[in-house]
Amino acid sequence: MIDAKEKSKKQVIIEEAAVLFNNMGYSATSMKDIANSIGVKAASLYNHINSKQEILNILLITIAKKFQDGIIDVNNSSYSSKDKLREVIRMHIRIATKNQNITALILQDWKHLEEPSLSEFKKIRNEYQEVFKNILKQGMDSGELKSTNLKITLNIILSSLRWIYDSKLYNNSQDVGLTELERTIMELVFKGVDVEN
Amino acid sequence: MIDAKEKSKKQVIIEEAAVLFNNMGYSATSMKDIANSIGVKAASLYNHINSKQEILNILLITIAKKFQDGIIDVNNSSYSSKDKLREVIRMHIRIATKNQNITALILQDWKHLEEPSLSEFKKIRNEYQEVFKNILKQGMDSGELKSTNLKITLNIILSSLRWIYDSKLYNNSQDVGLTELERTIMELVFKGVDVEN
Repeated sequence: MIDAKEKSKKQVIIEEAAVLFNNMGYSATSMKDIANSIGVKAASLYNHINSKQEILNILLITIAKKFQDGIIDVNNSSYSSKDKLREVIRMHIRIATKNQNITALILQDWKHLEEPSLSEFKKIRNEYQEVFKNILKQGMDSGELKSTNLKITLNIILSSLRWIYDSKLYNNSQDVGLTELERTIMELVFKGVDVEN
Repeated sequence: MIDAKEKSKKQVIIEEAAVLFNNMGYSATSMKDIANSIGVKAASLYNHINSKQEILNILLITIAKKFQDGIIDVNNSSYSSKDKLREVIRMHIRIATKNQNITALILQDWKHLEEPSLSEFKKIRNEYQEVFKNILKQGMDSGELKSTNLKITLNIILSSLRWIYDSKLYNNSQDVGLTELERTIMELVFKGVDVEN
């Protein structure tokens, strides 16, 4: 019982912190801001969490591992490279939209991580990109995907998924829903804007 | 003569500042850092420039106007929507790669602009996006471009151009040259990765 309650309070702090980090930036957010936002005293936060840095660390490593587990799961499948790419994009969109406040930290605030968390985060991120690149490479090698510059292709696809991390650019209650978002991104990545395809 | 020299010194300060803002972030860069980097005394900077804020303002308004002039020029042409889109993407890539350090400030550091510069920058940026959106809309309406969600299409294309602002992701002396970059981006935006197109 105590453990469950403890975990839940910690979770509340972490989730509220993610919202504030996004709105105000990590540097400008204080533990006091987080406490105020939850409606508790700042001192009581420290019963659950050691520092702002610990919060950032938990948020970023957790989300990075979600993406990593997702891509490993897809890559281990028996799908064709084209279907792997499709499923990786779908997985990426789903994790990003479901955890938008946390995913947004990947854009800039990861730079505030201290060692050894910084290296751990970079390692997971690099592994994700390596697996992504390999899926593209296998698709190009097998003739399922157009054989173009691998690095440019990887960067374009990853970038074209990045705007949805920003709640000012994508808000699924005001904008299109997840299904239309997924289908439109998939269509544009695979077939482009040209009507002749 | 004095005017030309003055302008040139100011230009040196501004260009060096852009490099430092990129490497260290705007907040972490001081006028002293800029002076050290040029090899002059901090006090002498103030003969040419009033503040760090003035530098950021000049950099961002200048680059935003370059993009704005570029898109207006293309939009005023007699080209088809598809060719306008092609030329806008080409113009965007050229300005971004030629002014990479300054363009990178558009990603995050514009948030440090103070009023009235902040509003001026946002106004130019919004106008750019509106013209871009209109080119896409006209292409969709005329049947030249696929009729899909306009907002998603705009965001995907703009995002897929954004990674080249980052010199860690695109370095034209180490990576591919400008011609291959342009052709690959154009191919992917218009035709996608699918080999069947």
